[in-house]
Amino acid sequence: MKKYLAEFIGTFVLVFFGCGNAVVLGGFTGGMGSGFLGVVAIALAFGLAIVAAAYAIGDISGCHVNPAVSLSMLITGRMNLNDFIGYVIAQVLGALAGSGVLYFITSASQGLRGFGANGYGELSGVGLNMIGALAVEVILTFVFIMTILRVTDNEKTSHMAGLIIGLTLTFVHIIGIPLTGTSVNPARSLAPAIFTGGAALSQVWLFILAPLVGGAIAAFVHKYLYSTEQ
Amino acid sequence: MKKYLAEFIGTFVLVFFGCGNAVVLGGFTGGMGSGFLGVVAIALAFGLAIVAAAYAIGDISGCHVNPAVSLSMLITGRMNLNDFIGYVIAQVLGALAGSGVLYFITSASQGLRGFGANGYGELSGVGLNMIGALAVEVILTFVFIMTILRVTDNEKTSHMAGLIIGLTLTFVHIIGIPLTGTSVNPARSLAPAIFTGGAALSQVWLFILAPLVGGAIAAFVHKYLYSTEQ
Amino acid sequence: MKKYLAEFIGTFVLVFFGCGNAVVLGGFTGGMGSGFLGVVAIALAFGLAIVAAAYAIGDISGCHVNPAVSLSMLITGRMNLNDFIGYVIAQVLGALAGSGVLYFITSASQGLRGFGANGYGELSGVGLNMIGALAVEVILTFVFIMTILRVTDNEKTSHMAGLIIGLTLTFVHIIGIPLTGTSVNPARSLAPAIFTGGAALSQVWLFILAPLVGGAIAAFVHKYLYSTEQ
Amino acid sequence: MKKYLAEFIGTFVLVFFGCGNAVVLGGFTGGMGSGFLGVVAIALAFGLAIVAAAYAIGDISGCHVNPAVSLSMLITGRMNLNDFIGYVIAQVLGALAGSGVLYFITSASQGLRGFGANGYGELSGVGLNMIGALAVEVILTFVFIMTILRVTDNEKTSHMAGLIIGLTLTFVHIIGIPLTGTSVNPARSLAPAIFTGGAALSQVWLFILAPLVGGAIAAFVHKYLYSTEQ
Repeated sequence: MKKYLAEFIGTFVLVFFGCGNAVVLGGFTGGMGSGFLGVVAIALAFGLAIVAAAYAIGDISGCHVNPAVSLSMLITGRMNLNDFIGYVIAQVLGALAGSGVLYFITSASQGLRGFGANGYGELSGVGLNMIGALAVEVILTFVFIMTILRVTDNEKTSHMAGLIIGLTLTFVHIIGIPLTGTSVNPARSLAPAIFTGGAALSQVWLFILAPLVGGAIAAFVHKYLYSTEQ
Repeated sequence: MKKYLAEFIGTFVLVFFGCGNAVVLGGFTGGMGSGFLGVVAIALAFGLAIVAAAYAIGDISGCHVNPAVSLSMLITGRMNLNDFIGYVIAQVLGALAGSGVLYFITSASQGLRGFGANGYGELSGVGLNMIGALAVEVILTFVFIMTILRVTDNEKTSHMAGLIIGLTLTFVHIIGIPLTGTSVNPARSLAPAIFTGGAALSQVWLFILAPLVGGAIAAFVHKYLYSTEQ
Repeated sequence: MKKYLAEFIGTFVLVFFGCGNAVVLGGFTGGMGSGFLGVVAIALAFGLAIVAAAYAIGDISGCHVNPAVSLSMLITGRMNLNDFIGYVIAQVLGALAGSGVLYFITSASQGLRGFGANGYGELSGVGLNMIGALAVEVILTFVFIMTILRVTDNEKTSHMAGLIIGLTLTFVHIIGIPLTGTSVNPARSLAPAIFTGGAALSQVWLFILAPLVGGAIAAFVHKYLYSTEQ
Repeated sequence: MKKYLAEFIGTFVLVFFGCGNAVVLGGFTGGMGSGFLGVVAIALAFGLAIVAAAYAIGDISGCHVNPAVSLSMLITGRMNLNDFIGYVIAQVLGALAGSGVLYFITSASQGLRGFGANGYGELSGVGLNMIGALAVEVILTFVFIMTILRVTDNEKTSHMAGLIIGLTLTFVHIIGIPLTGTSVNPARSLAPAIFTGGAALSQVWLFILAPLVGGAIAAFVHKYLYSTEQ
């Protein structure tokens, strides 16, 4: 059970700090108007959440904290189906707890609102349409999970995995925040969408589907590149 | 005595550079109005203070520079009570020295004032109330110290501990600065509150209590997760 | 063929995320007017693209993703001519794919335009003339590739090479973006110039020539410094 | 001679990129008015210059690129007097070359001027007086060199030394830029002061003296802390 508790804590940290940062900075300065800086600060919050969580709980559960990562581990044979299901449930519950605590914090303050949900069309910072958002989320998750699959599987670099994966998550957020808010993680998208409701909830299917597709493609490309055949 | 001197120097560095940065950047640009960027710069100052101090004095004292960290080391059995008391005294004295030098620097310049104290209610950037601040400080310290307890106890990662802990401190500041100014460290909060006085001093109990509670919870969760029993 | 596929993917990631970030942030906030922050965010996007790609595909191809890097590897005898030609073709194709997907994304959104091309004179943020741009690109590439050549050739540091090279690319972008947009990579410059056309295309020769010259100088200085003779 | 060439190149990189960044960003956005962001971008430029240089030339000369660092190495017995003199000459010549190339670049562009000199009183961003500047530079150099002396002397961390030292230099710049522009390095201060002349030149004595004092204190404290006696 410890590994499920670890996944619960890790996903809680990711959602509370990552999405929470978007909410807090928005309330602090009057919205995303400051543009560039919101992007860097929020991207750092998501990325460093992974750094912190990976070094705190990585040795217990691997610190997936993301159903798309767990799916890629299932496809590459590093995890069985039972554990995959257990991990995804723990991740979704952790994300819901993160959004729940964020709801409490925003209630306890003045001027804070929202949950950091993802979106396209009118919910995109640059008005990216549905097809564009689908493409962006598949590409971002593909790159993110290609890096995860190799850095964790290489004895020379595995002690740096948390740092490298966190920097990579920062990186996909820097470009993705203005486009879709950056999901690359179905659990991170589902919980804020449930708390937000409305258009965010009706669009959440894309942010569940696209990361899973991107993660699956990454798993197959990784298997091809690192197979022993020439 | 060397380890107490090391803790004194380390906590001095943390408070002088971290709190000092908040004061200096505030005086440079006319306050926190620039929002996002103040958050990133000040968060980096606190986090990189730990990176610098950890690699300078870590081999002497472990570079706790924080009574909540020392408490978690006491609970997990990595430190005895005598040393705990000596560390906390050295940390508080180092923090007072940091605030004292900051007082001298602000006196020697134009337009600088303040000590970077923490606060809630009217002292919070987003008007977070007392209960909200208590919850935030417990959660932030819990995450911070969960990461510290594991990264320092793992032979594969201990050489990276200063870097990872510094990045984690940056991370808890990014979200915490608008909420409470981020304490997660009773010594860091006490010294600026004494120099500032008034409401900052009357609120300082929360920033002593909450980090100790968060650190203790982290110690017990860490012990459970990494115990040998299944 | 796997190494060519790896170079294709890596250069695609660099161009799509690096140049794409310049385009996306420009569309998000109404251009480069925010100055400083655009510089940091875009510099991080280019640098962290290398971190992600290096740990994803570095063990397959070395993750050059840059003809100037491949040229320096040819000069220092770490790569043969056949592979050099194959790498450069894969890099140019990957860059074209990156610009192509960026074209699709901008078409799918409102307010995004451009491809992140380099330039001098009127295309430079500070009006740097042709000779100045030539000097800047030679110096930037020299420093970038001096670091690459050593960090990848040192057993003690090779596991950190992706991180260090990424930070170095961030570093040369911080100063170079206002000057020339920062090339240091002929493939990264050629693809956006082809998609942009006009003045960007007529100036692209400089951003092919100067990085190759800077990379060649770095290779010869590296060989001298690290030769066994005194 | 190779080690002197390495110090020349390294100090050139530090001054050209670090000071150059202050000049370029100033010309790009109309001065330091943007406050916070200038601080982070310029601090990153100085710090990452050390990261790049350390991994490019560190195995040749140790990458001091700073007379105060070389002085601390002399005091701790890691360098002899002849080498100390040779290093300082190479560092000053490298810094002059950096300022010289910066002079050429600014001449080749529109709207760029200055050399990134240090200063106090009216030249300080916050009007810090002479005594305050002296104290600040001694403290900043003390912290910077305490970290250098330990991280380079510890077999477990020496492969990370370039990264940690670069982050520490970033850190002392974040607080120091508004105060004095941050020297902590006599060579980095002398060259821009010579090219700038006037008040910058008449104040440069402080930025030569204070870093040497801070470095010497760090050397003695380091020797005490890490001596074998209790």
